[in-house]
Amino acid sequence: MIARTLSRGFALAAALLSSAATPALADGLIDNVNGMTLDAKGKVVNFTGLVIDNDGKVKTLLERRDKRPEKLDYKLDGEGRTLMPGIIDAHGHVMGLGFSLLTLDLSGTRTLEEALGLIKAYADENPSRPWIIGRGWNQEKWGLGRFPTAADLDAVVPDRPVWLERVDGHAGWANTAAMQAAGVKPDAKDPPGGRIERIGGKPAGVFVDAAESLVAKSVPMPRAVDRDAALIAAQDHLLALGITGIADMGTSIDDWQAYRRAGDERRLYVRIMAYAGGIESMVAIAGPRPTPWLYDDRLRLNGVKLYLDGALGSRGAMLKADYADKPGERGLAFVNDTQLLNMMSRAAMDEFQVAAHAIGDAANAQVLSAIEELAKDYKGDRRWRIEHAQIIDPVDIPRFAENGIIASMQPVHQISDRLMAEARLGTARLAGAYAWKTLVDAEVPLAFGSDTPVESPDPFAGLAAAITREGADGQPFGGWQPQERLGRVQAIDAFTRGAAYAGFAEDRFGTLQPGMRADFILLDVDPLLSSPGDLRTAKVVETWVGGVRRYEARRGR
Amino acid sequence: MIARTLSRGFALAAALLSSAATPALADGLIDNVNGMTLDAKGKVVNFTGLVIDNDGKVKTLLERRDKRPEKLDYKLDGEGRTLMPGIIDAHGHVMGLGFSLLTLDLSGTRTLEEALGLIKAYADENPSRPWIIGRGWNQEKWGLGRFPTAADLDAVVPDRPVWLERVDGHAGWANTAAMQAAGVKPDAKDPPGGRIERIGGKPAGVFVDAAESLVAKSVPMPRAVDRDAALIAAQDHLLALGITGIADMGTSIDDWQAYRRAGDERRLYVRIMAYAGGIESMVAIAGPRPTPWLYDDRLRLNGVKLYLDGALGSRGAMLKADYADKPGERGLAFVNDTQLLNMMSRAAMDEFQVAAHAIGDAANAQVLSAIEELAKDYKGDRRWRIEHAQIIDPVDIPRFAENGIIASMQPVHQISDRLMAEARLGTARLAGAYAWKTLVDAEVPLAFGSDTPVESPDPFAGLAAAITREGADGQPFGGWQPQERLGRVQAIDAFTRGAAYAGFAEDRFGTLQPGMRADFILLDVDPLLSSPGDLRTAKVVETWVGGVRRYEARRGR
Repeated sequence: MIARTLSRGFALAAALLSSAATPALADGLIDNVNGMTLDAKGKVVNFTGLVIDNDGKVKTLLERRDKRPEKLDYKLDGEGRTLMPGIIDAHGHVMGLGFSLLTLDLSGTRTLEEALGLIKAYADENPSRPWIIGRGWNQEKWGLGRFPTAADLDAVVPDRPVWLERVDGHAGWANTAAMQAAGVKPDAKDPPGGRIERIGGKPAGVFVDAAESLVAKSVPMPRAVDRDAALIAAQDHLLALGITGIADMGTSIDDWQAYRRAGDERRLYVRIMAYAGGIESMVAIAGPRPTPWLYDDRLRLNGVKLYLDGALGSRGAMLKADYADKPGERGLAFVNDTQLLNMMSRAAMDEFQVAAHAIGDAANAQVLSAIEELAKDYKGDRRWRIEHAQIIDPVDIPRFAENGIIASMQPVHQISDRLMAEARLGTARLAGAYAWKTLVDAEVPLAFGSDTPVESPDPFAGLAAAITREGADGQPFGGWQPQERLGRVQAIDAFTRGAAYAGFAEDRFGTLQPGMRADFILLDVDPLLSSPGDLRTAKVVETWVGGVRRYEARRGR
Repeated sequence: MIARTLSRGFALAAALLSSAATPALADGLIDNVNGMTLDAKGKVVNFTGLVIDNDGKVKTLLERRDKRPEKLDYKLDGEGRTLMPGIIDAHGHVMGLGFSLLTLDLSGTRTLEEALGLIKAYADENPSRPWIIGRGWNQEKWGLGRFPTAADLDAVVPDRPVWLERVDGHAGWANTAAMQAAGVKPDAKDPPGGRIERIGGKPAGVFVDAAESLVAKSVPMPRAVDRDAALIAAQDHLLALGITGIADMGTSIDDWQAYRRAGDERRLYVRIMAYAGGIESMVAIAGPRPTPWLYDDRLRLNGVKLYLDGALGSRGAMLKADYADKPGERGLAFVNDTQLLNMMSRAAMDEFQVAAHAIGDAANAQVLSAIEELAKDYKGDRRWRIEHAQIIDPVDIPRFAENGIIASMQPVHQISDRLMAEARLGTARLAGAYAWKTLVDAEVPLAFGSDTPVESPDPFAGLAAAITREGADGQPFGGWQPQERLGRVQAIDAFTRGAAYAGFAEDRFGTLQPGMRADFILLDVDPLLSSPGDLRTAKVVETWVGGVRRYEARRGR
């Protein structure tokens, strides 16, 4: 009686697009470029023209001798610039980046005095804010030889609570007003997994790891409009740096709702692969299984982020042996083996991907053991991820490849951490530290990211670090543990194809093969040929996502 | 340099659809029908053919003499059946309906013994369920003269907790195991806004209004898969009854996530206008403003549902004078005036619509006063809604029209409640009870719904009630307070165009004017001509949403 009862709208639109479109009508061409991408196997493919179809996907890659399509909807002359796939940041905190862009940033300060000056100026400029919130301080960088104190802060902001997160997010610094507002008593005890810094037995102002929440719980929650503003600030920043996709590590339901608002209102451009901040958030966000890809491959809840230990700087990373600079301490274990297995099992049983934060060698071994146990029951393409994988006992490295475990690492951490890592670990335990090349040689899938806002999300700093293991100052000359330097193609791979693979997205973006989303950047340098210094300061000229330009650098810089 | 940088995919698809589509290609025709719809002003429009465009919207309405389009993608012969707009239920509980379809239903029981038999059978059939959950009991219908007790339940299910909601959702009935699991002590006190029924001073098993949570808090939460199953069960049920849209009253974030999962996976067909269950849920779901219409007008968070009082049956409705059958009691006030103003203001400041549950005349007066106060600050098209508006002091009726307040009412409640209402109010206070016609005459916008699962969602029972004010048994002959009967067109209006208007959807669905979503039903009776009895038992033959058939009755009934 009725010919069709399918969802006709979609089927018809698709049919019209395929049947009515005469060849090349409404396609776009980016021509005269020094184009490069990796293919599905990681081999470099060069091209001089890129044809984009109506869906915003790559239609064809053209070499110089190929005939150009005649009928085009638009055409861009790339003026010989390098065109490469948009960068995928395999580990970042989108809302954290957004809020950090909107709040007081102390990461550039070189002394306590400089920081206090910035804090006072910010408080004076924002008289209506009930709390002064900031982040990015690092007493190591200040050469202070101690943690800062509440008294330091009270001298510049006595009247309002001040709460400032350390650069690694693993410690917070409060003034007296903040401790009072939070009800921190002089005899407050260290919570499990946390430590209160003390002077004369009383809280001195800095709260480490689990102790952070003693103050943080009283910080007013951001409103939904604040979250929306933070997302847009983060997105603009990422696109300007050439990042077209990012794995969001520790997504909350409120974060997710902000992403959905942006998607629903068609202002979500950057592709977000979300990992919920714990099992409860995972279920609240996605329910019984990972979400589908939403908004033309711009958002998906892939799985869950789990924390095994803290950071090396605050001696929270869990080590197999004592800290070299603090005998008797081996870091903070966030979960025991049973708890870890239970959480990972809860995720895996419903096909959620697990991304486990492990910094120290003991934490890495703990999650490796858990994966080996779970892999017996949960078969198939699981893509277990270890986030950071900073300090690995060399004997554990083969265990990654055995279960196809992805090492999700951040090259810039190596640059920032090297002196601290030497102090914490001593020279004898550096063989498996930031061991990119050893992992690649062991056939471990590598994904690179920035850990923004812990570090700048600028991927060119990351690429330069990956191939040199030198800082921006050229130190140490020839690279720190130089045997772990990567080749340029390997480094680009980990920041594009590898990062997409780590998020189950390698058939959607991360390369520019035909059929993939046309996510690409135009650069003022060629990353395969430029000096490391030029690569580190490379500027993105244009960023395109899904065949639409979403960022363009101002001219005449 | 570049012709366009807009979101090209969408623009191009739209351009192709409009330019490439030759006239009538790929349109559909529903022909040979006895078609009726209201126009934008509520006037009846008749037609014999309906043309549906590629978008699933109404393209044209054809009269018998009109030429039919020549090129069609599909054609349906309506065989002379009545075609009318899909019903919009202005007040229901989608997940409540779904769970009620999946759980023990006591609403058909006529005696306590019959109910206990069903409970025992259900417990025996479901040995693995840790709690036995049900709803729908009504001690008034049982002629019990008292509330049932825990001891009644213990006799049939002694070993597992049992928790059964009353038909109106305003009381719960527990067995001893449930009270023990919930930790209800023999000396438990009545919480504010609630009452524990007692025997010899000890909790007897029934918990009224706010006291319900003393037990309900311990009921295991449904899992996401349970929610998904409940949504699909509810949707199937609604579509089979000819309901293509519904206002969901009291949406939680978990409900919302289930609706989004269905939308994301393209299995959400029924149109849901959601009203969050409180300010916190409103913000969690929508953030800084109502959501856009999602999934081709199938989901939107319109606003917030607020509760002012309880139900008449359990004497929770807030009255201006004492209950006739319980002197000294005037019901339960859920919020004071300041709290109500604060909540309504919080919603209105961000353009959220307010739907305020008010049953008793005092509760209606309270919300009317609040709206009058807020209307000074919050201008524009607010469409304040009062849900139920069951008992209105006649002096308050003009106050509805003054601020364009929508009376969102449920005709079947009048049928179920009339004897109870007479007992609670006495005959002297019935003038403003279920006063549909008085409200229409006062030019108050009327929206009709079912309050499912409190009542059956069957809209034909509601339509029959609206025009007769007689029960299915024909009692009382000529109708209860018959001056409040509505005309057929008025009743259909409130169940279609009026219900859509109440949800800011009148330009999207609710009528079949050109440009509206093609949501319609084919019926085995003509609601404008059939006897009230035939109308009450009308059967839906087909239900179409957005130009796609989503329900078809089995043949040969």
